[in-house]
Formats: sequence, structure tokens, C-alpha cells
Amino acid sequence: MSEQKNTYRSIFLWGDKKIRPLEEGVRALVKEQFGLTEADLDQKYLYSDDEVKLDIAPALSEKQLNELQTICGNENVKTDDYNRALHAHGYFFGELLKLRKESIETPPDVVVYPKDEQEIVQLLAFAEKEKLAITPVGGRSSVTRGVETPQGGISLDLSENLNRILEVNEINHTVTVEPGIMGPVLEKHLNKMGYTCGHFPQSFEYSTVGGWVAARGAGQASTGYGKIEDMVLAMHVVTPVGIIQTKDYPASAEAWDLNKTFIGSEGCLGIITQVTLKIRPYRPKNTASASFIFKDFETATLMMRKAMQSEIGVPHLFRISDPVETETAFRINGFVNSMSDKFLKTLGYKNNSRCLMFVSIEGDKNYTLLVKKRMKKLAKKHHGFYIGGSPTKKWLKQRYESAYMRDPLMDAGIMTDTVETAVPWDKLIPLWKAVRTYLESREKSYVMVHISHVYENGANLYFTFLSPMKKGDEVEDYRVYHQGLIDTIHENGGSLSHHHGIGRALAPWMENEMGSTAMGLMQAVKDHLDPKGILNPGNTLGLRSKI
Amino acid sequence: MSEQKNTYRSIFLWGDKKIRPLEEGVRALVKEQFGLTEADLDQKYLYSDDEVKLDIAPALSEKQLNELQTICGNENVKTDDYNRALHAHGYFFGELLKLRKESIETPPDVVVYPKDEQEIVQLLAFAEKEKLAITPVGGRSSVTRGVETPQGGISLDLSENLNRILEVNEINHTVTVEPGIMGPVLEKHLNKMGYTCGHFPQSFEYSTVGGWVAARGAGQASTGYGKIEDMVLAMHVVTPVGIIQTKDYPASAEAWDLNKTFIGSEGCLGIITQVTLKIRPYRPKNTASASFIFKDFETATLMMRKAMQSEIGVPHLFRISDPVETETAFRINGFVNSMSDKFLKTLGYKNNSRCLMFVSIEGDKNYTLLVKKRMKKLAKKHHGFYIGGSPTKKWLKQRYESAYMRDPLMDAGIMTDTVETAVPWDKLIPLWKAVRTYLESREKSYVMVHISHVYENGANLYFTFLSPMKKGDEVEDYRVYHQGLIDTIHENGGSLSHHHGIGRALAPWMENEMGSTAMGLMQAVKDHLDPKGILNPGNTLGLRSKI
Repeated sequence: MSEQKNTYRSIFLWGDKKIRPLEEGVRALVKEQFGLTEADLDQKYLYSDDEVKLDIAPALSEKQLNELQTICGNENVKTDDYNRALHAHGYFFGELLKLRKESIETPPDVVVYPKDEQEIVQLLAFAEKEKLAITPVGGRSSVTRGVETPQGGISLDLSENLNRILEVNEINHTVTVEPGIMGPVLEKHLNKMGYTCGHFPQSFEYSTVGGWVAARGAGQASTGYGKIEDMVLAMHVVTPVGIIQTKDYPASAEAWDLNKTFIGSEGCLGIITQVTLKIRPYRPKNTASASFIFKDFETATLMMRKAMQSEIGVPHLFRISDPVETETAFRINGFVNSMSDKFLKTLGYKNNSRCLMFVSIEGDKNYTLLVKKRMKKLAKKHHGFYIGGSPTKKWLKQRYESAYMRDPLMDAGIMTDTVETAVPWDKLIPLWKAVRTYLESREKSYVMVHISHVYENGANLYFTFLSPMKKGDEVEDYRVYHQGLIDTIHENGGSLSHHHGIGRALAPWMENEMGSTAMGLMQAVKDHLDPKGILNPGNTLGLRSKI
Repeated sequence: MSEQKNTYRSIFLWGDKKIRPLEEGVRALVKEQFGLTEADLDQKYLYSDDEVKLDIAPALSEKQLNELQTICGNENVKTDDYNRALHAHGYFFGELLKLRKESIETPPDVVVYPKDEQEIVQLLAFAEKEKLAITPVGGRSSVTRGVETPQGGISLDLSENLNRILEVNEINHTVTVEPGIMGPVLEKHLNKMGYTCGHFPQSFEYSTVGGWVAARGAGQASTGYGKIEDMVLAMHVVTPVGIIQTKDYPASAEAWDLNKTFIGSEGCLGIITQVTLKIRPYRPKNTASASFIFKDFETATLMMRKAMQSEIGVPHLFRISDPVETETAFRINGFVNSMSDKFLKTLGYKNNSRCLMFVSIEGDKNYTLLVKKRMKKLAKKHHGFYIGGSPTKKWLKQRYESAYMRDPLMDAGIMTDTVETAVPWDKLIPLWKAVRTYLESREKSYVMVHISHVYENGANLYFTFLSPMKKGDEVEDYRVYHQGLIDTIHENGGSLSHHHGIGRALAPWMENEMGSTAMGLMQAVKDHLDPKGILNPGNTLGLRSKI
């Protein structure tokens, strides 16, 4: 790793920055689908292992820097090229492309690492006075262009010094943390005390509580534990016009819920400096797992809907892969043409139609066993074939690994991206078909879909798509393909996002999606709290900023 | 009823307007507690059966009335004394006192009954043009001075013509309604189709969906089904600056959740014209009920907390009465000194310490039975004595009756009021004690407390208090007592409301409770959506209105 330290490559590689070579099954599949050779796969496409050198010097005066250093301490104010480059982007596919092309157009002028709420108050006042943009970041895992710095200015990194656990309240079952704490640090601490946070987004290992809240995320166990908005009880938010502190009431009828104005505000309304979250008992031995094969996607989603609407208890992880994703998993795991595969086929679970479902339930032992039993019964009624708990357990073990596949695929010149939506049940199958049709209308594309967050009234759909890049025209090619994809989701009644957020990537659809009166209200909230428009400016959420 | 039609009395009597005589047990208790005679109880104190005559004529010109009639139709515009008086107040105790004193200081000038969203758009434009206050009302069951008309103007009654069920979506498990539909009409319609709304506030029989949403209410089964904010998927809200329509996504990460800005907005931000709610299967035969006696309130709440935090499944109704409320119920039901009572006492369930708990669970039969079993086990561990399902079932049967006791008690000159709060677990017992001490510091007071809405992280506390009125000084006496009560709740870390809302009654505490930055944000939202300040003006929620 050390030799990569200051390269562009070290910025865009995911997580621990170590490349996992593509599994043989994936290599074979990609070669076959896209007509590639071994050599194609082993190329180092847009490898970009040059040292970072920015063309743009920080647009800050000596005096401004001094003021920042006075607020945060010299060691917490950085203007070197590498740190500025590191804070110029998140992990949106278009951003990764630009980084691979070693193009960083609008880095922040400075990165600061505040140590407490009071420093943030001072930083906002400073930014207002100097008319500087200020963009809060945590793990920078945004896939929506949420942490870019199109106006330069200050990147406010909360992960370095504002990452403490302030209180675990075992009576109230709450934990109060600073925003910059990473998922595993929090979870490990809670596990040791017998609790879990219950929030496991794909980015869990490299994302922060502040980021989860700001982008309104969801974890893989959200069907049972809820989205992050269901977990937050209280917050501190520093805005340019003052600090808002909500209280840890279990519920309230004190006018409207202000927490809900800041959850999903993506750094546009204020800086989250403290969050109180629910915690739950950590009892992994009680977890009950079940896996099923269904004959087709329609029947699998029907069973899923019935499970959520029948009040038989709620699974925490609840997931179906569509036929292509199912077949891909089977193929990569060497299941295809095994004895079991042949047996399944004789039972009518045919490839390119059958679907894999994962279920796991947490809680009291009696509860998890009952829910599992009821799920098995319901699955059977819908011709779901029970294949034991281990496929689900295996999936859970490697749950964060798939994020690491993007880098070697991009090294091989393959566009690899994911997009997600939420949709009421009655629009789910038509939307799935329409988006699949759209994505497959591209020559040489490979599309996998799953449902991973389920509700009484609908579910999300998560699309993963691969396709060889158009060499030389990667950025524009992707832009156009992505635009058609979001158009298709939008036209078919899906939300712009279920848990990734909006950022700048989806901002262009917001006015049409929300309507002008709703956008006007959001803008008014923004203008009131951030009158100088310094907070995460440049069309985040589709909001205008005066800066 | 007919002879009461146009009296003050017919306005303030609850519900079906029929007086249920006080039960013998209640009479005996009240006599004993307050040293009253039979004659005291049979007096007709502030009986106010005079015909309503207002001193103030409607402050509307002929032209203004004509415009209103053009918008809504002649039959939907009313300026007679009775209708104006009817729409001048809700059911806050202080309002009931004033009505009993036949004092209606600020009636609306006119009551209108719009038929559709478009008429409401026109009404708001008219009110802005003419600088008239406009106050939306549904069932007028507000106990927080939420529907008063201190500035006169227009009372916008949504219950008459905007009360249709627009769609029951059996795929998505949702119902879409107009705001003025009453609880029983909705519930009956859903029950016939095999569904329930799951929202049963004390005011269920005479309150509307729009009111539930506007005041952020909770029903008696909220522990299982959630508060109204957990049930609303989509809304239409007509504001003076345009219509906001949210969508029925099961979840979303499209910036912050705008539904949550209107749930609890109490008519200050816009008129709710359409609501899409979750519905659940209606299977009363599956309901499992359990009732327990605990040795003391502390242990009963501990069991309740453990039940909510142990992930053993969730009861829908979950309730504990504190020792006085328990003893009151026992006494009224003739249980005291029965064989069973003596038996309980020998087991250590002593009066003035023991507490009654009600539990009922809905859903799949296997689920309800399991949860009941687990609750029984947990109760046993906390020395809870199981007394079968019938006390809970009996309570459920007469669940709406207690609201009818206020009228005969007030006829007997007894102040009868309820106040509620929500509190994290670690503050619950101290708050209960502090508020009890405060309420009992009044000479001749009788205080009953229960918990009726329970969460992983805390619960509500619901206080019912009785005390002879100070004759001649009823209004001021109550005001001072109520003020001290809210101060005590506030100082002991309770929310200003768990489900009644804020209205004007609790508005004076809002600035201190929320902080000035939060109040500033709420005011900015108000000023943006309602720039002329016509919507429910006069300090509702502590917001200023320009009108």
C-alpha cells in the first residue's frame, strides 16, 4: 500500500485499498458476456497510479489560513494536494472515472478537521464572513456526488476528530455519538456491551453515523430494524443561524418532527454534531436463517409481500435476487450443473426464471424460530423450495465484499455501477421489467437486480449493471446511459432513491419529482438556515446556493 | 336531544351528547374524596342550557359573503349564531368552562364547508386577499385550544363534505381518504373488506383523519401499529403558495421527508386535503389478551421496558395503571374486598401499591400466541400475577366510555382533566412522582396515572386529575393549576405532548422547549408557506402570524 500513498489510484480504490482479484467465475462470466479475452481482463485500464498533483493552488490568503489554524489548530488544517484531492470526490461512478483520468477540476481549497461543536460554530461564521463554501464529509462513500466541492472552499472532515461515543444509555437503549464515528468502531463497542446498532449499509466499514443520517441511508437489516430515520431519536445540528438540539423523547406531538428535516439534508442545512440512536440487544446465536428458491421473480415478490402484510413477525434481512442475479450467484459459486442444480431443475426451478431468497431474523430465540417457521410455511405455499440456512449465512459473511469488485472490473475497462429505487408493490414488477429492458437495450450489458429492503407497502429495487466502457468517451457515455436509467425509474413510478440519497447526481430530477411548491419549501428552509448559502453548495438536492 | 339543539350545553357535551349518569362506584369515590353530598353531585353546575346568542355579528361584508357562496355554494356557508359558536372552541378544559359560562368571545365570522381541493385553493386566495384568518377543523375534539378562532375569520369545516374514501389499495395495503372522514366510518369500511386502520385515539368516534394527522395523534394500539406519523405514506396539502403532493413510496431517500413537516403542523402550514394511510389485516379472532397485577409501579414499568427491549414481538395495546388508577378501577368494578382481592393481598399484591396491566396482541394467530406466552413469562419473572384475558377485553369494549364521564363530573362542579407527556425510560419514575406530588399539592385532588403508549426507548405518561372547582374563579384557578402542571412536566424532562398536540394551550412553553433556533426555523417554514399569516393564527404552536 505504501507506494500507492499519494496516487490518484489510492484515492478511488474502495475501502482497505487492496485489490481482490476477480473470482474465476466472474472472469469467465464477463469474458463470455462481453466477448473479452484474458488479456482484456488483465489490462490496467485508466490505472492512474501517478502521484497527485493539482493544477489549482488553494485560493486562500495567508490571513484566512491563519484564522482557520487559530480555530482548529495548525495540525487540523491541510492544504496539500493529496488531502485536497482526497476530499474532492466521493464514489459516484462518474467521479471514479474522472479520478482514473487524473482530472480533479474543483478540489477544496482546504481540508479542516474540527475537534468539537464550538469549532464548527466558529468555522461556519468564518465561512460566512469569507464567502467560502463549506462541505461536511464523513467516510466520503457518497455515490451521488454528495461530497464534491464544485465551489472549492472548505472540506469539513468530521471523521478524524469528531468520532467519539459520548454515552451508551442501557436504560433507554440508546447510544449518543459524534458524527464522524465509523460503523465498525461503533458496532464493536456496542457488541462488547451486548448491543447492536442494527444499521449495516453496504458501505458500513467506511462510512460514518453522520453520513448515514445526512444521506438518509438504510442498512441490510433495515426490514427489521428500520432505516436510519427510524433509529435517530435526537440530534445536534450546527447551522449558520444557531444550534438546533432535539431531545431523546421516545415519541412526541410537539408540532412537527424537526429531526426529520435534518435526516436527509445532505449537509445543506447544517452540520450534524451529535446523534442519539436506538440500540438493540446483540444476540447473534439467536439469529435464524432461511434460504429459498422460487420458480420466478413474480411469485417470490408475492411471497415477500404476503410475509410483510400478514403480521407473522418481521425478518431483519429479507432479500430476493432476480433470475439473472440468481443465476450469476449460482454460476460463480459453482452450483450450475451440480447434482443439486439438476435436481432443482427437475422440480421445475429452471434457470433464468428461478430466484434466490435470503431471510434472517434476529431477537428472542422463540421469536426468531417462530418467524422462520412461518416464513417457511408461506414460502412453501408459493412453491418456494427451502435450501437451508447456510446460503444466507454465507452471504452475510461476505456481505461487504461485493463493493470490492468494482475496482478490478474498472481496471478491466468495464463500467460497473448500481442504482436503486423504492416503489409501491403494485408498480414493482412493471418497474423491474422497464428498467431491465432499458439497461439491456445497451449493447453488451449485464444486469442483476435484487430487492433488499422490504415494507408492508412496497420495497426497493437495486440494479447492478456491467458493460464495457466506450474507450475515450467513458464519461459522456456513462452520463447518457445513467440519465436514461433514472428517467426510466422516474417514469415508472419509482423514487429517485431509497437509500443512496440525491446529492448532485440526482438533483436534476428533483423539481419534476417533488413539484415546484415542495422545492420552494425546501429552498426556503435552506435560505433561512443558511442565508449566505455556504453549506454544500452547487445544486446538492437541487437547491440553489447564493455562493 | 332535540330540545338541546341550539344550547351552549349541546356544544360542549361530548360525542353523542347523551349524559351517562355517574356509576355508583364513581359517585361514592368522589363523595368520599371531596367530602361531597348526594345533593352536591346532583346539582347542575354551570349547566348552560340557554340558547346560543352571540353578541358579535359576523364581520363580513355582503360582498365577502357572496364571494364565499360563489366558491362553496350557498348551502355551505353559514353565519348563524349556533354554527359560529359550535366552531369557536374544541374540548380543552378551559374552553369547556367558558362554554359553560356561556361566554364565546371570538367566534368565527363564518363557517364554510368546502367540497373539494379546488374550493380550498380558492378559499385560501380569498382569505389572503381579504386578510381573514382561516382555521381548519375536523371533529373539533382538540384538547389544546387548536381550533379556536381568536381572530375570527373563517372556520373551515372539512368533516361535512370532504370525507370520502378515495381508494383502498389491496396490493399496497393502503387507503386514501379525504381529511374529514371520521374514525368509525373509515374503520367500518375497512373492516368489511378485511382491514383495519389500527388508529384508535380516545376521540376515535368523533375525530377525523385530518385531525389525527394535523395534531400528530396516537391510538390505543400505537405500541404495535405506531403513531399516526408512522402510518401516513402520502398527503396532499394546500398551502397559500401552492399544493404539495407527496408520493406513496414505502420509504425514500429523496432529501428530507416533507410528510413529516405537515404531520403535527396543526393547520398552521396548509390544509390537508388527502391522506394515504397504511392498512392492516383485520382479524379480531386472532387477538390475544392478557392482564396482570404487579406489586408496584416501578416493577410493572420495568417489565414493560424489558418487553419492549427484548425483541419478543410487540403488543398492540400495552397499558399499566398506577396504584391509584388501579385501586380506582378495582373499587368501581366492585373488586375491592372480594374473595379475589383478599387472595391477591395475601400474595403480596397490596392496595395502593399494586398495578394493573393490560396487553393485547394482534396479527397472525401463531404470532399473537407466542407474544402472549413470552409476555406471561416476562411478567412472571417480575412477579406479575396473571389474571386472564377478560379484564383487558372488558377494558377494550368500553374504551371510549371514559370520555363521557367528564360532563356529569363537571355538572357536579368537579374539575376533570387529562394531560400527557412522553419521556425516556430513565426519567419516567421521577417524572411520575414529581407530577403526582404537584397535582396532589392541591387541596382535594384525585390523581390517576397510566402508561398507554410504549416504545423501546421510553413511554408516555397520562395523568387524569379531579378536583372540586373553585366556584366563581373556575377559569383562573384552572389556568394556574394547569400551568404548574406543565411546568412540572417540562422541568422533569417530559415532552410537552405525546399525542394531544400543542395548540394554543401549550404554545407558551414552546420557545423554551425547542430553543430559539428551532422556533426560528418553524417560523420561517410558516412564513414561507403562509406569507400573509392567515392559517390558524393566534399563537398556535407558538408561531406568530401577521394577521
